[in-house]
Amino acid sequence: MKILIINPNSSAEMTGGIRAAAEAFAAGDYAVLCRATPGAPEFIETAEDQVRAAPGMIALLREHERDCDAFVIACHCDPQLDVLKEITAKPVVGIGEASMKIASMLGHRFSVLSASERSIPGKEALIRSYHLEGYLASVRPIPGDWRSEDNVLAAARAALREDRAEVIVLGCAGLAGMDKRLQERLGAPVLDGVACALILAAGLAKYGVGTSKSGRYAMI
Amino acid sequence: MKILIINPNSSAEMTGGIRAAAEAFAAGDYAVLCRATPGAPEFIETAEDQVRAAPGMIALLREHERDCDAFVIACHCDPQLDVLKEITAKPVVGIGEASMKIASMLGHRFSVLSASERSIPGKEALIRSYHLEGYLASVRPIPGDWRSEDNVLAAARAALREDRAEVIVLGCAGLAGMDKRLQERLGAPVLDGVACALILAAGLAKYGVGTSKSGRYAMI
Amino acid sequence: MKILIINPNSSAEMTGGIRAAAEAFAAGDYAVLCRATPGAPEFIETAEDQVRAAPGMIALLREHERDCDAFVIACHCDPQLDVLKEITAKPVVGIGEASMKIASMLGHRFSVLSASERSIPGKEALIRSYHLEGYLASVRPIPGDWRSEDNVLAAARAALREDRAEVIVLGCAGLAGMDKRLQERLGAPVLDGVACALILAAGLAKYGVGTSKSGRYAMI
Amino acid sequence: MKILIINPNSSAEMTGGIRAAAEAFAAGDYAVLCRATPGAPEFIETAEDQVRAAPGMIALLREHERDCDAFVIACHCDPQLDVLKEITAKPVVGIGEASMKIASMLGHRFSVLSASERSIPGKEALIRSYHLEGYLASVRPIPGDWRSEDNVLAAARAALREDRAEVIVLGCAGLAGMDKRLQERLGAPVLDGVACALILAAGLAKYGVGTSKSGRYAMI
Amino acid sequence: MKILIINPNSSAEMTGGIRAAAEAFAAGDYAVLCRATPGAPEFIETAEDQVRAAPGMIALLREHERDCDAFVIACHCDPQLDVLKEITAKPVVGIGEASMKIASMLGHRFSVLSASERSIPGKEALIRSYHLEGYLASVRPIPGDWRSEDNVLAAARAALREDRAEVIVLGCAGLAGMDKRLQERLGAPVLDGVACALILAAGLAKYGVGTSKSGRYAMI
Amino acid sequence: MKILIINPNSSAEMTGGIRAAAEAFAAGDYAVLCRATPGAPEFIETAEDQVRAAPGMIALLREHERDCDAFVIACHCDPQLDVLKEITAKPVVGIGEASMKIASMLGHRFSVLSASERSIPGKEALIRSYHLEGYLASVRPIPGDWRSEDNVLAAARAALREDRAEVIVLGCAGLAGMDKRLQERLGAPVLDGVACALILAAGLAKYGVGTSKSGRYAMI
Repeated sequence: MKILIINPNSSAEMTGGIRAAAEAFAAGDYAVLCRATPGAPEFIETAEDQVRAAPGMIALLREHERDCDAFVIACHCDPQLDVLKEITAKPVVGIGEASMKIASMLGHRFSVLSASERSIPGKEALIRSYHLEGYLASVRPIPGDWRSEDNVLAAARAALREDRAEVIVLGCAGLAGMDKRLQERLGAPVLDGVACALILAAGLAKYGVGTSKSGRYAMI
Repeated sequence: MKILIINPNSSAEMTGGIRAAAEAFAAGDYAVLCRATPGAPEFIETAEDQVRAAPGMIALLREHERDCDAFVIACHCDPQLDVLKEITAKPVVGIGEASMKIASMLGHRFSVLSASERSIPGKEALIRSYHLEGYLASVRPIPGDWRSEDNVLAAARAALREDRAEVIVLGCAGLAGMDKRLQERLGAPVLDGVACALILAAGLAKYGVGTSKSGRYAMI
Repeated sequence: MKILIINPNSSAEMTGGIRAAAEAFAAGDYAVLCRATPGAPEFIETAEDQVRAAPGMIALLREHERDCDAFVIACHCDPQLDVLKEITAKPVVGIGEASMKIASMLGHRFSVLSASERSIPGKEALIRSYHLEGYLASVRPIPGDWRSEDNVLAAARAALREDRAEVIVLGCAGLAGMDKRLQERLGAPVLDGVACALILAAGLAKYGVGTSKSGRYAMI
Repeated sequence: MKILIINPNSSAEMTGGIRAAAEAFAAGDYAVLCRATPGAPEFIETAEDQVRAAPGMIALLREHERDCDAFVIACHCDPQLDVLKEITAKPVVGIGEASMKIASMLGHRFSVLSASERSIPGKEALIRSYHLEGYLASVRPIPGDWRSEDNVLAAARAALREDRAEVIVLGCAGLAGMDKRLQERLGAPVLDGVACALILAAGLAKYGVGTSKSGRYAMI
Repeated sequence: MKILIINPNSSAEMTGGIRAAAEAFAAGDYAVLCRATPGAPEFIETAEDQVRAAPGMIALLREHERDCDAFVIACHCDPQLDVLKEITAKPVVGIGEASMKIASMLGHRFSVLSASERSIPGKEALIRSYHLEGYLASVRPIPGDWRSEDNVLAAARAALREDRAEVIVLGCAGLAGMDKRLQERLGAPVLDGVACALILAAGLAKYGVGTSKSGRYAMI
Repeated sequence: MKILIINPNSSAEMTGGIRAAAEAFAAGDYAVLCRATPGAPEFIETAEDQVRAAPGMIALLREHERDCDAFVIACHCDPQLDVLKEITAKPVVGIGEASMKIASMLGHRFSVLSASERSIPGKEALIRSYHLEGYLASVRPIPGDWRSEDNVLAAARAALREDRAEVIVLGCAGLAGMDKRLQERLGAPVLDGVACALILAAGLAKYGVGTSKSGRYAMI
C-alpha cells in the first residue's frame, strides 16, 4: 500500500517535517510519498492561497492516482478537499477533518491550536462545515512564534483550563512531531493531523472503500 | 497488538459472525479477541437490554484491560460506550460511532439500515448525540427478515434513490460480512461497523492515544 | 394518588432529605413514597455509577408499578430515565428534565448548579439530549462544599451576573430544601428538581397520560 | 387557588367549551375563571388577529392580577405570552408552550394538529422559538371541518403512521374535550393544551415560582 | 418611488433624526416619508411597548398603502414586522432584519450595540428568529448614556477586540447618523439600520417583488 | 457608479443573457460591466470547475478594482466568493447569497430551482454555510431541459405545493430573464440572483460599506 501526502504549500522545509512525521508513524506498515505542491504559496493562510494551490494539488493527485491507494491533504484548513474527493474514487483524507473527527471520539470537547490569529474565523467556518461546532471548546491562537513548543504548550494549557477542552488538536501541519512530547506534558490526548489522516487513509484503503460517486462527488 | 471486541449480547451465533468478519478484516495485522457478553440478552433492542448488558461488558473490559490495546463494542447502538470510555484510558470504539463518523467523510449524507423498526427512534437519538444529524439522509428499516441480503439490498436502494443517501451504513453487527457484496451491487460505499471500528481502534492504539481523562471520562 | 420517588443512590441521608422535601411539597394532596435504590452507589457521579444503579431502580419500579400512579427519578442526571419510560406506560419524570423544561418557561436562560466539576460535561450532554442548549446560560460548579447554602448562593449569584441566567436550577437532589431561602435571597426563581418533577408527575397522573408506547418507548 | 384562563378571542361558544374542559380537569382542586377577550376577533388566525387581542388580554390580566394566582392563555399560538409574562411576576402559561413541552417528555417526537392550513408556518415559527423543532414530527392540518372528531382522528392517524409521531398535540383550544376519546381510539397520548397549561399553572402557583423578573421579562 | 418609514414610537425628536438620516441616504433617488406612530410610547423597550405601538403602525401602513411603494419599520427590535408583512403585498423591511442580514454578508460575525441592557435577551430571541445566531459575535450594551458617540465607540471597540466581531450593527434607530464617523474611527463596517432597510426597500420596490402571499403572510 | 458582474464561466451566450438582464434591471441608474471569465469552463457544475474559474475571476477583479464600485459573482454556487471578498475592501456580492438572503425576508421558506441534479448536494452545503437551512423548503431539480420555461414552472409549482415553499429562487444565472413571467404565472415571488445581487451591490456601494478587513477577510 502506498499513500500520497500532498503538502498544499511549496515549502521544502515543511514538507520535510511532514514526511519525517509520516514515515515515523507509518513505521513501515505502508509506503508514504510526501510531496510539496508546485506553484503553491510558501504558506497557506488566506482563501486566495488555497485556490493558488489548487492546480498543483490536482496535478499531483492525477499524476499518482494509479500508483497510490489513498491521498492525504496535509494542511489543517483542508484546502481543495472537495475537489480532490471529486476527482478520484479512492480515499482522500484532509488532516483537519481527520484529526477533528477523531478528537470528537476521545473527549467531550476539543480545542484547535492555530498558528495564526488570522486563520481562526476560517477554521471556525471549516469546523461548522463538518458539523463539529458542538464538539468545539475553542480555536486558540498560539501566542508568539508558533514554532516554539513552549508557546504551543501554553496555548494548550489555556485551552484545557479556561475552555474546558479535553482533547488538543494541532491546527497546523507545521506542528507535526510535537504531539507526543506535548501529550506527555499535558496529560491529555494531543492529535497531529498527519497521523490521524494516515490512520483513516490506510484503514479505508485496506477496507476498500472510498468517496461515494453517487452524488456530491460524482464524476461527470 | 490485540483488540478485544465485545459483543454486547450473548448470542454465540452472532459472536461467531462478528469474529469471522473481524479476523478477515484484521488479516493478521493484529490479533482480535471476540467475546459474547455473559448475562446479556440474546439480542439488544430496548434500552433495558442495554443496561442488562452492562455488568458483563464491564467485567469483560476489566478482565482484559491489561492484555488488550483497544476495545470495540460490537452493537450498532453503542451500548455503554460512555461507561467503558470512562473505565479505561485505552481506546474504546463503538461500531455505531465509528461507522457513522467515517460515513460522514465519504459522502454528503448517509443512511443507516436498521434491523428493526423499533430501533429507529433510539438510533436517531444516538445520531444526534454524535452531532451527526446534519449528515443523515435516513434511518431505514430493513423490510421483512433483516438477515436476508436481498432485503438489505432493497432498503439500501431505497435509501440511495428516495433519501438521496450517498453512503450506506449497516446498522447492526449481525449484518457483518455483507458489506462487500452489497457495495458491488449498489455502486456506493457500504460500511460495516466492525471494520470501521477496527480501523480506528487499531489506529489509535498504534498512535498511542486514548480517551481523555481530564473531564467527562475522568476516573475518580 | 401515590407517587413513587426513586432515589437512584443508596444513601439513607439523601433519601431522607428528598422525602422531607417531597412530603412538604405534596402537602397531603397525594401520597409520596420515597425509596433509596438497593445495590446502588452512595452517590451518583460517573456513568458507571448510573448503570450500577439500574437493576435496583428497575426492581423498585416493577415492585410498585401497580400501586403507584407515577414515578420520579430523584437524581439530576436522570439516570435510566429511558429505561423506566420504556418499562411502564405510567408517567415517569426525571428531576433533571422536569426542572430544566420548567425553567425554560420562566425566563430567557437558566443556569444549573452542579455539585461537582466532574459532572459538568455529562450535564451538558444531557441538556443537549433534551434540546435545551439554546436555553442554557451555564452549568456552574458550586465552589467548595456543595452542601453549604452560602456556596450555593455564591454560584447562583455568579450565574445571574456573569452568565446572564434568569432562572436557577438546583442540579442535585441533595440540594432539596434550599430553594425557597435561595429564591428569597436572590430575587430570581430557584427550582428544585423534586418539586418540579412532582408537579408534572402528579399532573400527568391526574390527566391520565403517560409515556407513548408507539415508538421509542414501546414494550416488546 | 384561582386561575384565570384568558381566551384570546371573543367567541362565547369557544369560551364555554374551554371553561367546561377546564372545570372538568380542575375537578374542584382549584377555581378556574374563564374569560373571553373583549375587543378581540372571533377567531385568532393571523398575526394581526393576535395584536388586536392584546389590549383586551392585558386589561383582563391587570383586572385579575391580585385575585388570581396564575394565568393561562388559551389559544395554541400563545398570543402575547411574552407581554403577559412581562406584566406580572405570577405564572403565565400558554397552552401551546405547555402542551408541546409536556409532549416532549412523553415520546420521541410529537405532531401538532392545526385547525387551519394557514396557521402552519406560524406554528412552525412558534415551535422553533421554544427550541422544540428537534422534537417535532409534523404540524398537520385537520382535513375538512376541524370541529369534526373524525377529521381530527384522521389527521392524528396520519401523523402517527406517516410522520412517526408518538404523541399528538391538539393545536387549537377549540378542540378541548376531544382528548380522551381520541386517546382511546389512537392508543397514543393525546394532549389538550388547556389541561397541560393547568397542570403547570397550578403547579407553579403551588410551588411559589413565577416568571423571572431579572432579564427579558423585567418590569421597568 | 416613495417609501414610508414608520418610527414605531411617538418621539418627535427621534423621528426627526431618522428622517434626516433617511433623506441624506436617499439623496433624492426616491422620496421618503417618515412618520412617528400615533398612540405609541415615547420609546420602545418592552414587549408591551411593542403591542401598544401596533394599532398606530397598522393605521399608518393602511393610510399609505396605495401611495407608497415600500415600508420600513424604524426600530431595531422590528416590532410588528410580521403583522405588516401580512397586511400588504408590498415590501416591508425591518431595520433589525435588514441590518443584520446585510452584516452577515460583510464579515464572519457581527455585534449589535444595544441602547439598554434590558433589551439584550429580546434582541437575542429576535436574532434567533432570523436564524442569525451563528453569525452573532455579541449583543453589547452601550455603557452609560447611549446617545454619547464616545460610549457607542467604546462598546464597538470592545466588540471588535473581545468578541471578535468583524462588523458593527447599531442596534437602535436613535443612533442613526453616527455610522460614518464610527466607521472611520473603527476601521470596520458600521451599519445603521435605516440605511440598510432603505437599500432593501428601494431595491425590492424597483424589482417588483414583495412579501409572499401564499403561506405565512397570506391575507384571508 | 459602475458594477462589475463576473460570470465565472466562459460562455459568451450565458454572459450575454446575464448582461441583458442586468442592464434591464439597472435601468440606467448605474453602469454595469458584464464579463465572462477567461480560462474558465463553459459551465460551472463541479467543485473542480469552481477552482478552474478562480484565476480568471481574480484577474478580472484586480483589473477592475479601481474603476468599479462593487462586484457581483454571477453563478448561483457563488464560486470563489470568499477569495474575492478577501482581495478587495469594496462590496462583493454572490448571486446565491444575495437571492437566498433576500428570499428569507419575503416568506417563511424558499425553494431553489437547480439546473442539474448533480448540483443539489453542493447547493445544500452552500445554504448551510450561509446559515439558511432553517429557511429552506427544498432544492428542486428542474426536470428535463432546464432552459425550458415550462419545465422551470413545473419545478416551481411542485415546490410551492409539495414543499410548502413561499418564495422561488432561480438557482442558475442562466435562468435570468424568466423571473417576471414566472412570478406572474405562479402568484408568488420569484427571485433572480442577478437582480438581487445588484440591489445589494449598488446599495452597499452607495452606502460606502464593504467587506470587513478586520478578521476572516483581512488582507495580509
